Amino acid sequence: MRILLVGAGGVGSAAVAIAARRSFFETMVVADHDLDRAVRAVAGHGDRFVAATVDASSTEAVTALCREHRITHVLNAVDPRFVMPIFDGAFAAGADYLDMAMSLSRPHPSRPWSETGVKLGDEQFAAADRWETAGRLALCGIGIEPGLSDVFARYAADELFDEIDEIGVRDGANLTVDGYDFAPSFSIWTTIEECLNPPVIWEAGRGWFTTEPFSEPEVFHFPEGIGPVECVNVEHEEVLLIPRWVEAKRVTFKYGLGDEFIEVLKSLHKVGLDATTPVTVRGVQVSPRDVVAAALPDPATLGDRMRGKTCAGTWVRGRSTSGEPREVYLYHVVDNEWSMREYGHQAVVWQTAVNPVVALELLATGAWSGTGVLGPEALPPKPFLDLLTGYGSPWGMEER
Amino acid sequence: MRILLVGAGGVGSAAVAIAARRSFFETMVVADHDLDRAVRAVAGHGDRFVAATVDASSTEAVTALCREHRITHVLNAVDPRFVMPIFDGAFAAGADYLDMAMSLSRPHPSRPWSETGVKLGDEQFAAADRWETAGRLALCGIGIEPGLSDVFARYAADELFDEIDEIGVRDGANLTVDGYDFAPSFSIWTTIEECLNPPVIWEAGRGWFTTEPFSEPEVFHFPEGIGPVECVNVEHEEVLLIPRWVEAKRVTFKYGLGDEFIEVLKSLHKVGLDATTPVTVRGVQVSPRDVVAAALPDPATLGDRMRGKTCAGTWVRGRSTSGEPREVYLYHVVDNEWSMREYGHQAVVWQTAVNPVVALELLATGAWSGTGVLGPEALPPKPFLDLLTGYGSPWGMEER
Repeated sequence: MRILLVGAGGVGSAAVAIAARRSFFETMVVADHDLDRAVRAVAGHGDRFVAATVDASSTEAVTALCREHRITHVLNAVDPRFVMPIFDGAFAAGADYLDMAMSLSRPHPSRPWSETGVKLGDEQFAAADRWETAGRLALCGIGIEPGLSDVFARYAADELFDEIDEIGVRDGANLTVDGYDFAPSFSIWTTIEECLNPPVIWEAGRGWFTTEPFSEPEVFHFPEGIGPVECVNVEHEEVLLIPRWVEAKRVTFKYGLGDEFIEVLKSLHKVGLDATTPVTVRGVQVSPRDVVAAALPDPATLGDRMRGKTCAGTWVRGRSTSGEPREVYLYHVVDNEWSMREYGHQAVVWQTAVNPVVALELLATGAWSGTGVLGPEALPPKPFLDLLTGYGSPWGMEER
Repeated sequence: MRILLVGAGGVGSAAVAIAARRSFFETMVVADHDLDRAVRAVAGHGDRFVAATVDASSTEAVTALCREHRITHVLNAVDPRFVMPIFDGAFAAGADYLDMAMSLSRPHPSRPWSETGVKLGDEQFAAADRWETAGRLALCGIGIEPGLSDVFARYAADELFDEIDEIGVRDGANLTVDGYDFAPSFSIWTTIEECLNPPVIWEAGRGWFTTEPFSEPEVFHFPEGIGPVECVNVEHEEVLLIPRWVEAKRVTFKYGLGDEFIEVLKSLHKVGLDATTPVTVRGVQVSPRDVVAAALPDPATLGDRMRGKTCAGTWVRGRSTSGEPREVYLYHVVDNEWSMREYGHQAVVWQTAVNPVVALELLATGAWSGTGVLGPEALPPKPFLDLLTGYGSPWGMEER
């Protein structure tokens, strides 16, 4: 297996550190628009890793880099603006493709808060026949959420439930950053995108529909000492992926943002600073959202000052295989202290990065295989969960 | 009188429209970094007005422009970053000087929320001897607040009170902008500056000291139908000016920001978007605060969509000239509908702009005169209040 990793930011760099301990691949080319960043990501990890530059917005550039290095699998670890050129670039080069976020949505032009417009991943699913005909695999949304959360949903359907009333992905943390009043632990660009878009919900008989941002607040109790966190509906790929392969009456995603973060996001939106369309500032064109990202500390650099744990998981409610009412929360917790000590990467990016590396290893060994445009829930969950535990990062389950 | 007006933004353009109806001056050169804006400001107002360009950050450029047009009075109507070059440029050219905001403060390096550092206007007062020796006048803070609010303070001390316990400048409005959830009616650059700096308070025996931002919230009842508005302490020139010339036990400034605006300002601060130091965004340097201003609609262009009234005034509590307890609110209200109909300028910028024009007319007629660096409360208040009424914009007083 010859991997091209596009993006040497927080998640990409953590993926390098995780993959460096595994023997399933022959080479990994780590490409970024900033060569120095790629060089730093591969430094000290051995000669299977090669740094390169790439313009991730150019299909042709991605294809050319794949051909140059005879790439078999492309792992996309940049922000979701670049999904389509990387996805198309991998296809043109005859490589398989993995990502952790799907092609972007566009709100319904007249009823954004009740109906979907272009949905997350629609552009990729539109190409599914082409990928299938070519015998190639695009495994989409194989980070932590989407990713492990989807694997949990399939595992619940396969092993724990006969009938599912609701699958609710729930994400919460108790992370703090010393010395900062406000320092998001994940890409603010992506967080703005997912939190300010209309949240999407799926219901059997109704299909996908949207609500107002930050709708249906609920207090969810997270395990391993994190405790209660207020969670709200947020647009996320799981809601688009899970219903395609797993039978459930309702699928939701709620994010434990907390009041303060919600207030900041609402304020950024009021002022128009969530916009990606450039504004002219003293003769120079900049995207306000890029300025927000530039004004905040880079979350990948905050690991030394972070404390606490982050939890991703899937709450499932329905009837068990023995016909009883059952409610479980399948989850994965990473303690920042552990991920920093073991890998030198902070908890949130490490937790995201481990999953595509596990998936690549399953594809390398043949435990996972497929063609077309698939979500993680399209593939057997047990090999994934077992190998994740084998990476030293076990998952858990609470009966509720 | 030959006037150089620096800045053809909202306040500058309104000053042109107001001055155009008065005959006390010979010429007014309107200079902006953007010549088109200056041309638009003078268009249709007759041949006493001349458009020009100027780099307001350059003392030499201001001096050269003064000399070219034999300027006698410079009116500074740009944001307070440019106070010192314009102030020094006027002095070097032998012109008198007026502004509506003073040189910027810098917080105390170690105790910003309890002690003052460099105060508003300190840099200008440091030059007071030089101006006095030269026989020249710098009349500082002669907008609405500071400006008319300071005139009210002096008027209360001269005519209404024997002893003053507190002078509290209080600003509130009920303005809304059709079609916008959030659209500040005044320069966001200046609003961020004054609201996020440590608010300053003056007390007899203690002098100037600071508090946390948004401290001491109180509900103040504004006249003419505006009603109750929550006001909080904000850094403002009046607190630095009034105690120099008017005897009082305490001087404060509170701004009726409202909860929503306070939340937005707090959020901008958390994310670092209030910063003026440039950040690098995809290879380009921009000041985050300039991006905030660029992302919002220009308040000067919103007049057609605005509704409501804005009120500026000075609340005074003490013992009357007959020895009784007395509490009054001296105020000035502008209805946006009136200012748009009469002048084509929205209420907030019109209300700011009228005061320096009145002051220039008093200086032209000799009703006001002086040397050194003075605040509006250093000069007799009655001629000012009478001429303001003569401009068609009467003030009011409520006994409380």
